[in-house]
Amino acid sequence: MTRRLGLGIDYGGTKMLAAVVDIETGSVLGTSKKRSRAVDSSDELLRRLYDLGDAALRDAGVTADELVGIGVGIAGQVDAGRGILLGTPNLSQATVDLPLAAELTSHFGVPTQLRNDVQIAASGELHFGAGEGVGDFLCVFVGTGIGGAIVRNGELVTGATATAGEIGHLIIQADGRLCGCGGRGHLEAYASRTAITQSLLGDLKRGRESILTELMPAPSEDAPGGTAIRSGILAKAVAADDPLVTETLIQAGHYLGLGLASAINLLNPSRIIMGGGVIEAVDRLFEVASTHARREALPVPGHGVEIVKAKLGDNAGVIGAALIGAGAA
Amino acid sequence: MTRRLGLGIDYGGTKMLAAVVDIETGSVLGTSKKRSRAVDSSDELLRRLYDLGDAALRDAGVTADELVGIGVGIAGQVDAGRGILLGTPNLSQATVDLPLAAELTSHFGVPTQLRNDVQIAASGELHFGAGEGVGDFLCVFVGTGIGGAIVRNGELVTGATATAGEIGHLIIQADGRLCGCGGRGHLEAYASRTAITQSLLGDLKRGRESILTELMPAPSEDAPGGTAIRSGILAKAVAADDPLVTETLIQAGHYLGLGLASAINLLNPSRIIMGGGVIEAVDRLFEVASTHARREALPVPGHGVEIVKAKLGDNAGVIGAALIGAGAA
Repeated sequence: MTRRLGLGIDYGGTKMLAAVVDIETGSVLGTSKKRSRAVDSSDELLRRLYDLGDAALRDAGVTADELVGIGVGIAGQVDAGRGILLGTPNLSQATVDLPLAAELTSHFGVPTQLRNDVQIAASGELHFGAGEGVGDFLCVFVGTGIGGAIVRNGELVTGATATAGEIGHLIIQADGRLCGCGGRGHLEAYASRTAITQSLLGDLKRGRESILTELMPAPSEDAPGGTAIRSGILAKAVAADDPLVTETLIQAGHYLGLGLASAINLLNPSRIIMGGGVIEAVDRLFEVASTHARREALPVPGHGVEIVKAKLGDNAGVIGAALIGAGAA
Repeated sequence: MTRRLGLGIDYGGTKMLAAVVDIETGSVLGTSKKRSRAVDSSDELLRRLYDLGDAALRDAGVTADELVGIGVGIAGQVDAGRGILLGTPNLSQATVDLPLAAELTSHFGVPTQLRNDVQIAASGELHFGAGEGVGDFLCVFVGTGIGGAIVRNGELVTGATATAGEIGHLIIQADGRLCGCGGRGHLEAYASRTAITQSLLGDLKRGRESILTELMPAPSEDAPGGTAIRSGILAKAVAADDPLVTETLIQAGHYLGLGLASAINLLNPSRIIMGGGVIEAVDRLFEVASTHARREALPVPGHGVEIVKAKLGDNAGVIGAALIGAGAA
């Protein structure tokens, strides 16, 4: 039996995953995983990618020469056509204009494709997840930030300069909160895990009581202000009916619903697929956001749209990346 | 010489236009025009369309049997595939589920296509206006309301239930002003002529001085609260440096810029084409909106997008309708 195998790598803001994937079936034959952390140089960034890919190959019991191709998705701006990582401010300030695809091609001896992290996840959901058989949908991923991708006729809509889909930067509040991008009032500044964390830490500082003080690790010296509150901790606090966390997530869900409603009104999609760490961990956020989106959208497109959760979870990105790498997506 | 002629009818919220168009060149051979007004019955609505079409044919010196087809665009919800006007709340409360295309086909003896008013204008600009040769753009029309259309690969993006492009219903202010559609914080409630009028009339009531009191017709018995302030009057007030009107339009332009920025971030269009009565009459609104849109959009898609004025003016709709009617768009 000849299998067609791809290696997919998903280098996100929080964690990095790699998987060897059977591209005909979408099944994962071996994986590896690491926490993401800021790196000081392009060499270090590449070394982490090589190590991660090698570990996934070992886990699957295959060698690089058995691969059809490699796909990499990374949290940053990419020039997909030339395989160049233009910048990845959250992962490495030092990395600009890195010919990442060419470096991986040279290291593994296998053709490599580069995309951003949202594009690979959308591709995974399109072929083996919640978008299978639909062809026209909008993906929204809520994690460190809020990413999105528009799929039309089974193809990713890239836009004029390959940045289409940035639903996290819809303006939902004129002159509102400052966003990480420098803009004001963007959805990401209201409903991402970063925004939820900031809101909660502010409330704790002002003396609000919450189970979070027991659940959260003590601030380390590296991050004296406290790092992002992990999705699993938010889920535990909601399960314990913690009033502060519940209120905060409902508020974030309302804002997320407004962003979805704007996208529904402008695009009239047949389906919205929601994924990302916070959505996967906290059902409440998904429920509030989808209910509010339908209520706030225009009646016809609002009634028409299906809003569903992503199916592949953490594997969406690596599966999509492997498919893209193997030329199957 | 055989010309291929189409009749285009544009029944908007403010005025209704018809034109006989040479569909190979886009040139207009004859026109007719009326003010739009609310009608009490479907029969009255149809009679107005017949009269308007007949007048345009007379003006062009041609008869209906010389037409290849008729296209009608109307301010309302349409089922384009079946040629049915689902509803047109601004024009006739009494008209629901009217088989408008079939009625016109029967009256004129020529096959008729039905669309909404924004779709025909986008089609006109695509083939003979500011979208010529581009194929990927977003149209935004600012008039009584704010309409929009997304064109991709030379085709109108209709969405799952044919409502795509509703840029007027992007939410730009969470829990903000009430929109005519019943939603809150929609762009249309901040930057349409209706919104601009409401804001100005409120300020006049509160005693602000303005040249408007000289320029505006006295309130009639039919509309004791004052009707919409016409675009030409706004333009005269700006030309006279009237502080109230200038401030109000700058504020509307800022909001319009926020809506455009959201659309730029989500869609990454190569071009935005802005038209409609207010944009055509008041350069200042176009300038403020486009400058603010670039400033508020993400840098890459914001720098990449061209923002231009529509080229065909009032004729965009009738030309587009004629093309659609003749099967040429």
